[in-house]
Amino acid sequence: MSTEAKLQELFSRSEELEALRGIGDGLAWDQEVMMPKKGGPLRARQISVLASLSHERLTDPALGELLQELSSDGELNEWDAASVRELKRQYDKGVRLPSDLVRELALTGSLAYEAWVEARQKSDFAAFAPHLEKMLQLKRRQAQCLRNGGTLYDALHDSYEPGMTSAQLDELFAVLRPRLSGLLGRIQESPNQPDRGLLQRPVAVDVQNDFGRSVLSAMGFDWQAGRLDVSPHPFCVGISPLDVRMTTRYSETQLGRAFFGMIHECGHGLYEQGLEAARFGQPVMSSVSLGVHESQSRLWENVIARSRAFWSHWLPKLAERAPNLSDVALDDWVHAVNLVEASYIRVEADEVTYGLHIILRYEIEKALVEGELEVEDLPEVWNDKMEEYLGIRPGNAAEGVLQDTHWSQGLVGYFPTYLLGNVYAAQLHAKAQQDLPDLEQQIATGRMRPLLDWLRQKIHRQGSLYRPVDLISRATGSAPDSKHLLDYLESKYAALYRL
Amino acid sequence: MSTEAKLQELFSRSEELEALRGIGDGLAWDQEVMMPKKGGPLRARQISVLASLSHERLTDPALGELLQELSSDGELNEWDAASVRELKRQYDKGVRLPSDLVRELALTGSLAYEAWVEARQKSDFAAFAPHLEKMLQLKRRQAQCLRNGGTLYDALHDSYEPGMTSAQLDELFAVLRPRLSGLLGRIQESPNQPDRGLLQRPVAVDVQNDFGRSVLSAMGFDWQAGRLDVSPHPFCVGISPLDVRMTTRYSETQLGRAFFGMIHECGHGLYEQGLEAARFGQPVMSSVSLGVHESQSRLWENVIARSRAFWSHWLPKLAERAPNLSDVALDDWVHAVNLVEASYIRVEADEVTYGLHIILRYEIEKALVEGELEVEDLPEVWNDKMEEYLGIRPGNAAEGVLQDTHWSQGLVGYFPTYLLGNVYAAQLHAKAQQDLPDLEQQIATGRMRPLLDWLRQKIHRQGSLYRPVDLISRATGSAPDSKHLLDYLESKYAALYRL
Repeated sequence: MSTEAKLQELFSRSEELEALRGIGDGLAWDQEVMMPKKGGPLRARQISVLASLSHERLTDPALGELLQELSSDGELNEWDAASVRELKRQYDKGVRLPSDLVRELALTGSLAYEAWVEARQKSDFAAFAPHLEKMLQLKRRQAQCLRNGGTLYDALHDSYEPGMTSAQLDELFAVLRPRLSGLLGRIQESPNQPDRGLLQRPVAVDVQNDFGRSVLSAMGFDWQAGRLDVSPHPFCVGISPLDVRMTTRYSETQLGRAFFGMIHECGHGLYEQGLEAARFGQPVMSSVSLGVHESQSRLWENVIARSRAFWSHWLPKLAERAPNLSDVALDDWVHAVNLVEASYIRVEADEVTYGLHIILRYEIEKALVEGELEVEDLPEVWNDKMEEYLGIRPGNAAEGVLQDTHWSQGLVGYFPTYLLGNVYAAQLHAKAQQDLPDLEQQIATGRMRPLLDWLRQKIHRQGSLYRPVDLISRATGSAPDSKHLLDYLESKYAALYRL
Repeated sequence: MSTEAKLQELFSRSEELEALRGIGDGLAWDQEVMMPKKGGPLRARQISVLASLSHERLTDPALGELLQELSSDGELNEWDAASVRELKRQYDKGVRLPSDLVRELALTGSLAYEAWVEARQKSDFAAFAPHLEKMLQLKRRQAQCLRNGGTLYDALHDSYEPGMTSAQLDELFAVLRPRLSGLLGRIQESPNQPDRGLLQRPVAVDVQNDFGRSVLSAMGFDWQAGRLDVSPHPFCVGISPLDVRMTTRYSETQLGRAFFGMIHECGHGLYEQGLEAARFGQPVMSSVSLGVHESQSRLWENVIARSRAFWSHWLPKLAERAPNLSDVALDDWVHAVNLVEASYIRVEADEVTYGLHIILRYEIEKALVEGELEVEDLPEVWNDKMEEYLGIRPGNAAEGVLQDTHWSQGLVGYFPTYLLGNVYAAQLHAKAQQDLPDLEQQIATGRMRPLLDWLRQKIHRQGSLYRPVDLISRATGSAPDSKHLLDYLESKYAALYRL
């Protein structure tokens, strides 16, 4: 078989795998956004069957042979070589996992998710604990299958941020934690606090929705290739680059929650829409890591949409639709949307405390996986750490350990990628400012496409051509480093709070 | 392997097939109701991959052996024997179809559907013709693979109404066509015509939606196991008995279109919800045929929801919500919702002319499949038959040959089941009136659950235990016969139009 024919065979198989992944993401979206209440158990069976089929196709020995042959084929161009590398990485992981484990993970995840929804509503950790216990057993089994010299936790984290170890995370977080805590302390002591009431002024849900959509359009989101709906826990899935679905949630007196949530998910959505449709289905044309994905959402949500330049254009437009905001001064508004405070809920945390929420989860899930922490002790440990890092103690499980959906769905080792996203976002933005000298001016006049085009070129269109760390290094000219995030935060908040 | 172990293996395989079917139905629903505009081509690939996987699983030789062994196993109870028979029927059909044909049918169907949507909007038959031509080639190839002594058309029709041949259809339709035409002629000549303006009085979409949902609730639809949305072409899918999705479409000045559409789809939905969830995934626990399915929708839509008894309860409730209907007399309203007229669009046709629309489609698709009619001649032949049977000639393709989605999706041989549904519905209702002597009184007081319970017991819970004709015979005490439909129509319309 010629190299060309082998590649065609490879792409035909990867298109099939990609189609199954897209179907699975569509089912997950449907489950959160559309599915009637009683549909859960039979949906769980569907998801489990699909996961099992995908696993079977991924681990087909014929695919293994093909990948083996192509791996040592010197004729491949860099795109095709990256496709072979990416699919081989998944194949190598896949063959280490027995089919029954894959099926059980999917089934348990679907049922545990339903249990988590109910447990969170009732703030009843005990109702969720057996599901979490079961899930952790499965995840440890999975980690034992996947581990490759490193720790159990590394084996799980590697699926989300390929190549990044917990030793590296420890190092990054060791720099971040004290400086974030220090910054938080200085902010809390500042006499210059924003008026938090500004963001609590009631704005009708329709207006929030309409205004949010107009901003997303200006960012470049293609509504013919995507949609926005409502779900309790906002998220974004790319069923394909031409079918990207985001969700948000509304409350009349919490404009910021819906608005910044929309911008955040749209950052993810623009990455998915930015994958090259013509090459889609080839292993190289997929997002490279969750950390890089999160860098896109965080860059738009925090660095852009919480900037003075951004609101100098958009605040008057918002006030046109919401007249009870027309008396708000720009600087007061910008300070208010950058309110920093110790709070319970990660997804509503500001960008200074956010990292502390992540470091807490990272430490806890690592201990759970490594068997250093029991599920029953979890609420206590969670609350103790909240007190230590943020100085506050949750009053119940819903605002504590039950707030996130991740563990219920088996997403263990996932949380650190959120903080990596912040690190990468600040670094990308610093470089974008160099490459686009009038970036701030563009944002201040509502023109966001030049930044999108820069991201398209530097990140989105690259797919998985390079490993995450290499991608960031190529895009910015230097290896990932938390100093960009800390510089950005310290200088921004020194100005806002006049520190 | 023991019989018990073989059955477990069979059910495990059928659960998997059922899960894939449910996923496919969910994708189809999503494509019509939720998917963004550009998503089509990559969605087509997903649907094609899924169809191909399902086909592969269905035709696994190990399943064939298992079915062979179980077919000759005398220990099975009647439910399990029916499961074996049903899956064996599908398997036998499946192994006759080559994988590439299955994949191509799915892919062509998805693309042709998109083309049909656009062609219908523009009323441009020429734009759709190449897609239909391609589809018919594939369907003929499919029929050649499946045919088992009968005609090509029989081979296709058998997938929708197992065991029913075109010879039987010809016989049923030969009785129906002249008597329906005769009844239509007498109705058209009657001086007692209803006031068609009553149903054109504007009713807000919200009110239509709200009122419709309240009727659906009274019929027994479980909203925790289903939902209702909007799509251009109303339909219903059972993703599982606990996740049943219906659609309708609204227009302020066409209350009847949305309302009777909702009742119709709910008839289908109640059948799907009525399958036994605990046994779901076993081959026996699925709806038995499209004709029987349609009997459920037609019974509710026409026999119940167009009856005087029904409106004696519901008209005052509608008028409460839509005050501009409060001056309408019950008899005038009942006559108006039973307006009979020659019209172009099948889904909006009354129950007298409906059969003529079907007979036209049946004759045309049979001729297309048997190679007696070319695609290019289709619009002309369609219009000629419309003139012959209904006395009217469509002015354009959108109100003629392009009105239905079926052929675009490869649903050829499907149309006759609609008329079979009417035949079965009238026969079931006649029997229900015997078994539930106060049925009319119940309907007149808004109590529809006794009828649902009767249908649950006689039809829904039986799944595919018996073949369609046997199921109807057992439920009603006699073989399917068009005389019940003709008696019902002739007596009802003689009264309404004072013939």
